[in-house]
Amino acid sequence: MRLTSEPARPGTVHLVGAGPGDPGLLTLRGARLLETCTLVASDRLVAPELLDLVPPEAVRVEVGKRPGAGWSQSDIDDLIVDAARAGHAVVRLKGGDPFVLGRGGEEAAACVAAGLPFEVVPGITSAVAVPAAAGIPVTHRGMAPAFAVVTGHEDPAKPNQQVDWQPLAAFPGTLVVLMGVGSVETMATQLVAHGRSAGTPAAAVQWGTTSRQRIVEAPLAELPAAMERAALGSPATIVIGDVVAMRGVLAAEPMLVGAA
Amino acid sequence: MRLTSEPARPGTVHLVGAGPGDPGLLTLRGARLLETCTLVASDRLVAPELLDLVPPEAVRVEVGKRPGAGWSQSDIDDLIVDAARAGHAVVRLKGGDPFVLGRGGEEAAACVAAGLPFEVVPGITSAVAVPAAAGIPVTHRGMAPAFAVVTGHEDPAKPNQQVDWQPLAAFPGTLVVLMGVGSVETMATQLVAHGRSAGTPAAAVQWGTTSRQRIVEAPLAELPAAMERAALGSPATIVIGDVVAMRGVLAAEPMLVGAA
Repeated sequence: MRLTSEPARPGTVHLVGAGPGDPGLLTLRGARLLETCTLVASDRLVAPELLDLVPPEAVRVEVGKRPGAGWSQSDIDDLIVDAARAGHAVVRLKGGDPFVLGRGGEEAAACVAAGLPFEVVPGITSAVAVPAAAGIPVTHRGMAPAFAVVTGHEDPAKPNQQVDWQPLAAFPGTLVVLMGVGSVETMATQLVAHGRSAGTPAAAVQWGTTSRQRIVEAPLAELPAAMERAALGSPATIVIGDVVAMRGVLAAEPMLVGAA
Repeated sequence: MRLTSEPARPGTVHLVGAGPGDPGLLTLRGARLLETCTLVASDRLVAPELLDLVPPEAVRVEVGKRPGAGWSQSDIDDLIVDAARAGHAVVRLKGGDPFVLGRGGEEAAACVAAGLPFEVVPGITSAVAVPAAAGIPVTHRGMAPAFAVVTGHEDPAKPNQQVDWQPLAAFPGTLVVLMGVGSVETMATQLVAHGRSAGTPAAAVQWGTTSRQRIVEAPLAELPAAMERAALGSPATIVIGDVVAMRGVLAAEPMLVGAA
């Protein structure tokens, strides 16, 4: 367990996945690094309890992105590189997993370009844990032997990007959509237009694994309207597939992580 | 952090994801449950260091499955139900994440059927962390906005099962295959036959995130032969997609978790 016990290193960037929201889902390695860093640069949505692990004398920077405001990715890259160059033991604390739609690859590449050592510490991804906390296994024998994770967030740099809906509609398993609240109407329409059954079980889970968790469940074609009626907004994870019906079996049980 | 600090409960089954191999990738909640359980039923491949967290007086059962031998799923279901009914605080320690091709849904359903409380604690899935430890982000801006996780393990109960290769070949993102060593030849052939480029970057990672980690990298059509030449066997994670090329940028760096 060498890597577990080693402290954060001066002059190094540790890219740490904070997990989906429940602070108990941080890894042991992530906790050790938070406890020993001298500067933490954290996403807006990470659990506040995780920052309580950071030494009081450490520098804290919240580098959250907001639509049209907040830190740009290149500003974040510059911050972590500059801080490590200045001798800080840097933890870059990212929601979920650094490499699941989290732009961790870009931050790691920025470290390489600057000649700085870095470490990637995976985190529990919302794509798996948020459905679980709602009683939904993303795979289930005889029901879904596979799952796919896609972003619902359109890339503003590519306004004419064409999503290829055909293979997504025909994907032989569960679809999990992150950052999809704004695009759920388009998504449901296109998936049905390309052959996914309108009655496919679907659910949206806001603030999953936390005490604020809210769930809307509806057949795929009706999910956007159901989410609107419930005023269910970001951050949310959308799950589409037969496994959503497992909620009827599993979610009556109150001890699933985050449901309390 | 209520759920983090609560001990394992007598009469309850805690389904805990052990993560991909590196013991530092266990969650805080998982560690607390291991430290306070009275019976642990563990998969064959979980890190031995994790069992060191279990109290010496607790009962340990290894319920590993081997081809043609070992515990059947129904035997495992019966064991955890019987142990919880007998008053044990049961941890069912499963490799990776309980709900990612881990049959955790079946074990949870067995608890529900028996009227027993259960808790699901997600684990870091090999599908994301093993590529990461090899320098491969499963998603990357401009390269892969999505990833899919599929099993390479054919269901022996369904000998005539037809995999639908078309949507997998056309999937707009990274493909990650778990338990795919035995089927990699078929997979590579079928993906190429259905339109995936024969030159798609691909890699297989054995014992990912551990000190035994081995990596074979080759274009998709050549991966099966390259794995055979290297005698790369199970357990392995196979990654197919442009992101594999990120290894050239990121994997020169020795501090990635598990690479040490």
